[in-house]
Amino acid sequence: MRFIKAKLLVLAVIMFLAAPLSAETEMEKTSSWLPSLQTSTPQEGFELAVKLSRVGVKTTQPDKEVLFREREKYAQSGEALIHASEVIAVHFQTVAAANNYWK
Amino acid sequence: MRFIKAKLLVLAVIMFLAAPLSAETEMEKTSSWLPSLQTSTPQEGFELAVKLSRVGVKTTQPDKEVLFREREKYAQSGEALIHASEVIAVHFQTVAAANNYWK
Amino acid sequence: MRFIKAKLLVLAVIMFLAAPLSAETEMEKTSSWLPSLQTSTPQEGFELAVKLSRVGVKTTQPDKEVLFREREKYAQSGEALIHASEVIAVHFQTVAAANNYWK
Amino acid sequence: MRFIKAKLLVLAVIMFLAAPLSAETEMEKTSSWLPSLQTSTPQEGFELAVKLSRVGVKTTQPDKEVLFREREKYAQSGEALIHASEVIAVHFQTVAAANNYWK
Amino acid sequence: MRFIKAKLLVLAVIMFLAAPLSAETEMEKTSSWLPSLQTSTPQEGFELAVKLSRVGVKTTQPDKEVLFREREKYAQSGEALIHASEVIAVHFQTVAAANNYWK
Amino acid sequence: MRFIKAKLLVLAVIMFLAAPLSAETEMEKTSSWLPSLQTSTPQEGFELAVKLSRVGVKTTQPDKEVLFREREKYAQSGEALIHASEVIAVHFQTVAAANNYWK
Repeated sequence: MRFIKAKLLVLAVIMFLAAPLSAETEMEKTSSWLPSLQTSTPQEGFELAVKLSRVGVKTTQPDKEVLFREREKYAQSGEALIHASEVIAVHFQTVAAANNYWK
Repeated sequence: MRFIKAKLLVLAVIMFLAAPLSAETEMEKTSSWLPSLQTSTPQEGFELAVKLSRVGVKTTQPDKEVLFREREKYAQSGEALIHASEVIAVHFQTVAAANNYWK
Repeated sequence: MRFIKAKLLVLAVIMFLAAPLSAETEMEKTSSWLPSLQTSTPQEGFELAVKLSRVGVKTTQPDKEVLFREREKYAQSGEALIHASEVIAVHFQTVAAANNYWK
Repeated sequence: MRFIKAKLLVLAVIMFLAAPLSAETEMEKTSSWLPSLQTSTPQEGFELAVKLSRVGVKTTQPDKEVLFREREKYAQSGEALIHASEVIAVHFQTVAAANNYWK
Repeated sequence: MRFIKAKLLVLAVIMFLAAPLSAETEMEKTSSWLPSLQTSTPQEGFELAVKLSRVGVKTTQPDKEVLFREREKYAQSGEALIHASEVIAVHFQTVAAANNYWK
Repeated sequence: MRFIKAKLLVLAVIMFLAAPLSAETEMEKTSSWLPSLQTSTPQEGFELAVKLSRVGVKTTQPDKEVLFREREKYAQSGEALIHASEVIAVHFQTVAAANNYWK
C-alpha cells in the first residue's frame, strides 16, 4: 500500500515536471521561448520566474533522464527545495522590476 | 513526558505549516493568489515575502506529504532555518521596492 | 573549570538570544512589530536588518525550544555564522535603500 | 547497453560543454569576448547570462581537463544544478537591467 | 619547524582578526560605530563592506573565544572563504550605491 | 606520466593564482588598489569583478600558503567553482551599475 503510494508519488512528480519541461523544450526549438519579461499580473510574473529557474537548470544539464532523476531527488530534500525557492526569488526580482512592480 | 512534548511539537509545526498551505493551495486554484505586490504596511509586506518563499517551495514539490515531512526536518535544522530566512529576505527586497519602501 | 565556562557560554548565548526574541514575540502579538523601514541612522538600520533576519528564522520555526537549541548550534559553526551574516546583508540592502542610504 | 548509454551521455555532455567553451576561449584570446551587455531580445540576454556564469567558473579553474571532469560531476548533482541556475539568475538581473528589461 | 610555522600562522590569524574586532567592539559600545555609509574612495567603501560583514557575524555570536576558534577554522576552508567573500560582495553593493558608485 | 601532468597542473594553477595575487598585494600596500569602479569596457568590468572577489577572499585569509593550498582545493571542486562564479556575478552587478551598463 505504502509502496504503491510512493510509486504513484514518483510518477506524479515526473509527470508534473515532464509537462512544463516538454513545453519548454519545444519552445526552445522555436525561435523564441522568452519573447518578453512583461506579464499581465504579478502571478504570471511569478510563473515566469519559475520557468526561468527551470531553464537555468536545463541549460546546465540538458539530458532529460538525468534531470528527471535529479529533480526527483531534490524535490525530496528540504534544503534543495529552499534553494530552488531562492533561485525563483532572484528571477522574480528581475521580472517584477521589468513590470514596474505591476503598479 | 519528553516524548509527548516532542509529539506535540511535531503536531504544532504541522498545524502551523498546514494552515497557510491549505489557504495558498485554495488560492492557487482560484484565478489569482497574487493579485498585487502592494501592501498597506511593511509588516504585511514581510508576510507577503514569507508567502512567496513558501509558494516557491511548493512549486518545486507540490506533494503535501513530502512537504510536511521535509518542512519538519528543515524546521529542525539551524542551517536550513537561516537559508529559509534568506529567501524571505530576497522576496522582501522585491516587495519593499514595489511599495516604494512604504515611504 | 572548562566545563563551567562552556556552561556559562551556553547560558550567555541563550540569554543574548532570548532577550530580543521575547521582545519580538511580544511585538508580533501587538498589531505592528514593523511600523516602518525608516531609521534615524545607518546603525539603527543595521539593527533593523538583524531583527528582520531573526524574524525570518522565527517565522519558519516558531517553537522557542527548538530555536534556542538550533541557535546555540549555529552560533558555534563558522559556516552558519557567515550565512547568518549574509541574510543580514540582504536585509541591510533593503533598509539602506528605504532610507536613501541616509544621505 | 546501460553502460554504453552512460558513456554516450558523458560524451554528449562533454561535447555540449566543449563547444561553447572552445568558442569562449578563442574569444578571450581576442581583444574582446564581451563587447556589450546589450542584446536584441530577452532570450539572447539569458544566453549571455549563461555565458557570463561559465566564464566565471573558467576564470577560477582554467584547466580544461579539470573543468570537464567537474562539469560532468556537477551536471549529475541536483543541488549543484540549482546553484548553477542561481548564478545565471544573478547575471540575468544585470543583463536585464542593462537592456532596460527590453521594454 | 613545520609545527612552529603552523603555530605562528594561527597566532598571526588571531592577531589579524583580533585587531579590528577589538576596535569594532569598542565602537559598538560608543553611541555610533556606523555613522555613515559615505566613504571618500571605493577602496574605503570596500573596507566598510568587510567591516559590515564582520559585525554581522559578531552579532550572531558575540563570544570572542568562540569567534576566534571559528574564524581560524573557516579561514582554513576554501568554501567558507568564498562564502565570506560573497557577504562582502553583498555589502559592497549597498555601500557603492550609497556613494553613487564614486562617480 | 599522469603524475607529472598532475604536478604540472598544480604548478600551473599556483602560477596562475600567484600572478594576480602578488600584483594585488603590492597594490594594497600602495595607497590605492581600487581607485575607481569605472572601466572602459564590460570585459574590463568583469575582470574587476573577479579581482574584487579575490580581494574578498584574501581579506579573510591573508596567509599566502593557506590561500594557495585552499585555492588548489576549491579549483578542483565543481560546487566551489560555481560558488566562486556567484561571487563574481554579485560584484559584476555593482561594477555594471557603476558604469551605467556601458550604454
